Amino acid sequence: MINFKNIKVISFDADDTLWQNENLFRQTESAFCKLMTPYAAQKKALKVLWEMEVKNIPCYGYGIKAFVLDMLEAALKISKGKISARETKKIINLGKELLASPIVLFEGAENTLKKLSKKYKIIVTTKGDLLEQENKVYRSGLIKYLRHIEVMSEKNKTSYLHLIKELNIKPQEFLMVGNSVKSDILPVLAIGANAVFIPSKFTWFYEDGDAGQIPSKNFMKLDKISKLLEML
Amino acid sequence: MINFKNIKVISFDADDTLWQNENLFRQTESAFCKLMTPYAAQKKALKVLWEMEVKNIPCYGYGIKAFVLDMLEAALKISKGKISARETKKIINLGKELLASPIVLFEGAENTLKKLSKKYKIIVTTKGDLLEQENKVYRSGLIKYLRHIEVMSEKNKTSYLHLIKELNIKPQEFLMVGNSVKSDILPVLAIGANAVFIPSKFTWFYEDGDAGQIPSKNFMKLDKISKLLEML
Repeated sequence: MINFKNIKVISFDADDTLWQNENLFRQTESAFCKLMTPYAAQKKALKVLWEMEVKNIPCYGYGIKAFVLDMLEAALKISKGKISARETKKIINLGKELLASPIVLFEGAENTLKKLSKKYKIIVTTKGDLLEQENKVYRSGLIKYLRHIEVMSEKNKTSYLHLIKELNIKPQEFLMVGNSVKSDILPVLAIGANAVFIPSKFTWFYEDGDAGQIPSKNFMKLDKISKLLEML
Repeated sequence: MINFKNIKVISFDADDTLWQNENLFRQTESAFCKLMTPYAAQKKALKVLWEMEVKNIPCYGYGIKAFVLDMLEAALKISKGKISARETKKIINLGKELLASPIVLFEGAENTLKKLSKKYKIIVTTKGDLLEQENKVYRSGLIKYLRHIEVMSEKNKTSYLHLIKELNIKPQEFLMVGNSVKSDILPVLAIGANAVFIPSKFTWFYEDGDAGQIPSKNFMKLDKISKLLEML
């Protein structure tokens, strides 16, 4: 359980917590695999792409530009060095389309932020590419409820401790709300702060984690974002 | 002139202020143009690449991943859709080499930060790709002198005002040190803060600006970073 009386800052994850994101990546993955059918079965192409994503995280980090470079390198591997310029161009365009995708807010997200922002300092804490994430927050229309946007290169204990120090609050006054056990929940609980887990329909394989292993202290699971209003 | 007595926070730009950077991009550009010789003269290839970089800033932002995607798209254009998979792979590898380049600090950079950090709060304020910039700061060995790393998607008045608010200081207590008139000097002076301009041997064409047009208030030009120690 969470002692909501202590909370001063509520921090929301962005992708797949406030708006749809992973489903767009799934569509792009699917278009990529179709493009690779001259060279490999779709399942095999997807496997190579996923392996490339994980392999390249240390050098590319997260975000769409990294994903496009992963698709290009995976295509080179899948085609055994035979991809055509036309296919290269198609992959670059898949990335540009993904970057330009409209933001589709989850039901209740705007109303929840609006109401909570009257009583709490609301921020967004997200991971990945700085420009992409800032652009999404601006395009989401939610910026008016936010006091800060924190983009981290990795959501780990060190990053959260740094954020809490910058916010000039104590860990027990911080609440993180997100859909990734690995990034939004476990490191936050580990530093003594609070976390609300809202599973999303689609979660990136890399972020998948087992909610069963989460300690119950300072923690709560909700099925949708608007349920927060009943708690706070 | 700058009233140094007021200064509480000194913020350094990173690329081409603390360490060499632009020369690495120049080397990569040169390798790219050589790769394009079957399709175009080197001067022509460079022109297409530069135009592609500027065109793609709104969607890709800054940094090496953006630059690799620019090179790939420029190669498609220069070759009229004929680049081979081998060339695509070479361009991706140019990017990976650039990401792994060792950090070469400017002479006096470490000693200057070390001494200043005893009296002032020292931070790094840079633009571009979050992971790339953080990685460079960690690899530079300068992290022990820094209290904060701020990576902005654009270095403009809004971003600097936000930073100063987060730092909980007044504009006149903030000093920015950098090599770009456009990003490190003009927006900082425009919000009433202080700026020291240290021109670098290589400056990205996009950041080139005329130091002649800078108002003299709150401003100073130095020829190397260690000269700061004589001022502060």
